[in-house]
Amino acid sequence: MSNVPELLRVGTGFALSAVDPAGTPGLPEKKTVRKDPKTWAREQLVDLGAQLATQQEMLFATAKADPKDKRRLLLVLQAMDCGGKDGTVKKVAGTMNPQGLHIVGFGPPTATELRHDFLWRIHRALPKPGLVGVFNRSHYEDVLVVRVRKLAPKRVWLSRYPQINDFEQELADAGVTLVKVMLHISFEEQQRRLLERLRDPTKFWKYSPADVDNRAYWPAYQEAYHDALAHCSTDLAPWYVVPADRKWYRDWAVAHLMLHAFKGMNLQYPPANFDPQRERQRIEEGVSQT
Amino acid sequence: MSNVPELLRVGTGFALSAVDPAGTPGLPEKKTVRKDPKTWAREQLVDLGAQLATQQEMLFATAKADPKDKRRLLLVLQAMDCGGKDGTVKKVAGTMNPQGLHIVGFGPPTATELRHDFLWRIHRALPKPGLVGVFNRSHYEDVLVVRVRKLAPKRVWLSRYPQINDFEQELADAGVTLVKVMLHISFEEQQRRLLERLRDPTKFWKYSPADVDNRAYWPAYQEAYHDALAHCSTDLAPWYVVPADRKWYRDWAVAHLMLHAFKGMNLQYPPANFDPQRERQRIEEGVSQT
Repeated sequence: MSNVPELLRVGTGFALSAVDPAGTPGLPEKKTVRKDPKTWAREQLVDLGAQLATQQEMLFATAKADPKDKRRLLLVLQAMDCGGKDGTVKKVAGTMNPQGLHIVGFGPPTATELRHDFLWRIHRALPKPGLVGVFNRSHYEDVLVVRVRKLAPKRVWLSRYPQINDFEQELADAGVTLVKVMLHISFEEQQRRLLERLRDPTKFWKYSPADVDNRAYWPAYQEAYHDALAHCSTDLAPWYVVPADRKWYRDWAVAHLMLHAFKGMNLQYPPANFDPQRERQRIEEGVSQT
Repeated sequence: MSNVPELLRVGTGFALSAVDPAGTPGLPEKKTVRKDPKTWAREQLVDLGAQLATQQEMLFATAKADPKDKRRLLLVLQAMDCGGKDGTVKKVAGTMNPQGLHIVGFGPPTATELRHDFLWRIHRALPKPGLVGVFNRSHYEDVLVVRVRKLAPKRVWLSRYPQINDFEQELADAGVTLVKVMLHISFEEQQRRLLERLRDPTKFWKYSPADVDNRAYWPAYQEAYHDALAHCSTDLAPWYVVPADRKWYRDWAVAHLMLHAFKGMNLQYPPANFDPQRERQRIEEGVSQT
C-alpha cells in the first residue's frame, strides 16, 4: 500500500488553508509511471475498485455467516457545492456491488427531523452489519452550514464537537469503521464547475441559484471546515482532506483510503459451516427432476 | 431496439415448460455479429449499461425538478436457488449510479412481518420517486415457497393472485413502472452451480444445505412459477421469462428489458427553472474569495 492515508490525514498542526486543492499527494512521479498521471490514476482505479469489491464481498459474507459480527464500513463525504461528492459516489462506490451498498444523502432537515436532536436522523441511516455505507453529507452539516448561516447559536454548535466525538466512539464500539473525507476544491474550481453546469443542458438539474449565494460565505465555510476537522479527527475516526480539483486524483485517493480502512479490518471469507464433501454427495446422489 | 421484450413476455398460451433455459431468444445470428456470441453480448452490455445510466439520471433529475412527478422503475427478480439473482443485480444494476438505486432483498418473513399482511413489507420497500428499485425476491414468494412448502392453505395463496394484480395496478397508478423477470435455469444447471460453490472456498458463504433439500421440490416449484406468471402477467405489469443457464445472455436480456421499460417512460432532462444567462453573470461578477 501507499502512504496516501498518512499524507492526507488530519493530525496535529493541521491547517486547511495549507492544503493545495490541486495537489496530488502520494501520486508516484511521472517518470516512474511512464505515462500521463491522469491515465495512470484512472487505470489504477480499476484495480483498486476490484480490490474494494472483494473486500466488500468478504464483509458481506462475514456478516451473513456470523450474525454476532457487527462490522461495517461507513464513508462520510463532505465538500463545498460542486466539490465532487456525487461524482465520488458514482466512480468509487460504483466499483462495488450495489447490493452491498447503503447510500444516504442528507439535505436540509425535514420538519420531523428538526423535532429530534441532530444525530437522530444519522442513527437511523447507519448501514447494517456487513454493508458499506456512504453518507453524502452528514452530521457535520450541523457544525458547518448551521454555523455559517447562523441556524443555531454558537453555544449549540460548539457543544456538538464533543457530542460528535462521543457518537463516533459509540459507532466504533458498534463495529463501524469510519472513513471521513473532505473533498477540498478551490474557489476558482467551484466557479468553473458552476459555469459548466450552466453550459450543458443535461446538467441544469444539478444547478441551484442558492449555490451562488453560498459563494459569498466561502471564507466562513473554510473556517468552519477547518475547526470541524481539527476538533473531530480522532484515532478511531480520523478525517482525511482529499485535494479534489482534479477528479482523477480525487477518485484514486478516496479508493485508497477505503481500501486502507478495509485492510485494517482483516477480513476473510468465512469457513464452511457444513461438510463440503458430504454436501457434494447429497447433490450428486440427490433426487432427479422426475 | 430489438424484439427481446416481445420474445420473452408471458402472454396467452404461455407454458413455462416450453421455455429452454439454455436458449438465447433475440440474439443476432453468429454470422451477423462476426464473433463469439458471449463476447458480443458482453460488449453490448457495456453499451446498454451506459444507456441505462443515462435513463436513470434523467429519471432522478425529473423527480428532483418536479416533486409532483412520482415516476420510478422497479425491477422484480425471481428465480430458483442459484438462478442468478445476485449476479444480475451486480452486472446489470451495477452499470447504473448506485446513488439512484434502491435494492431490497426479501428473505423469510420476520416475526414482525408475519403479524401483517403479505404486502406490508413490500409497500415499505418501494423505491421513492426518481429511483430505480430492485427487488431480489418479492411478494411472489408468497405464491411460490408458501404454496410449495405448504406454509399457508390453498385458499389463502390462491386468493393472492388477484390481490397481487390489484396491488400492482395500484403501483402503476402511483407512477411505478414494473419490470418483472423470472430467471429460468435448468435442474442440471442448478446442480452445476451448487457443486461449483462447494469447490471454491470463496463461495462457501453462498451455499446453504437447505438449497439441496429444495431440489426435491423442483417440479412443484416449476408448477407454482408457471401459475404465478400465467395469473399475474398483465398489460400494466407483464412478466418476462429470461433463459438464464447462460449468464451472458441473462445479463444482456435483462438490460434490454430495463431499457425497453425506461424508453416507454419518455424521460428527458428537465429544463432550467432559472435563467442560465443571468446566473452566468451572477457567477462571473460575484464576490471574490477575499
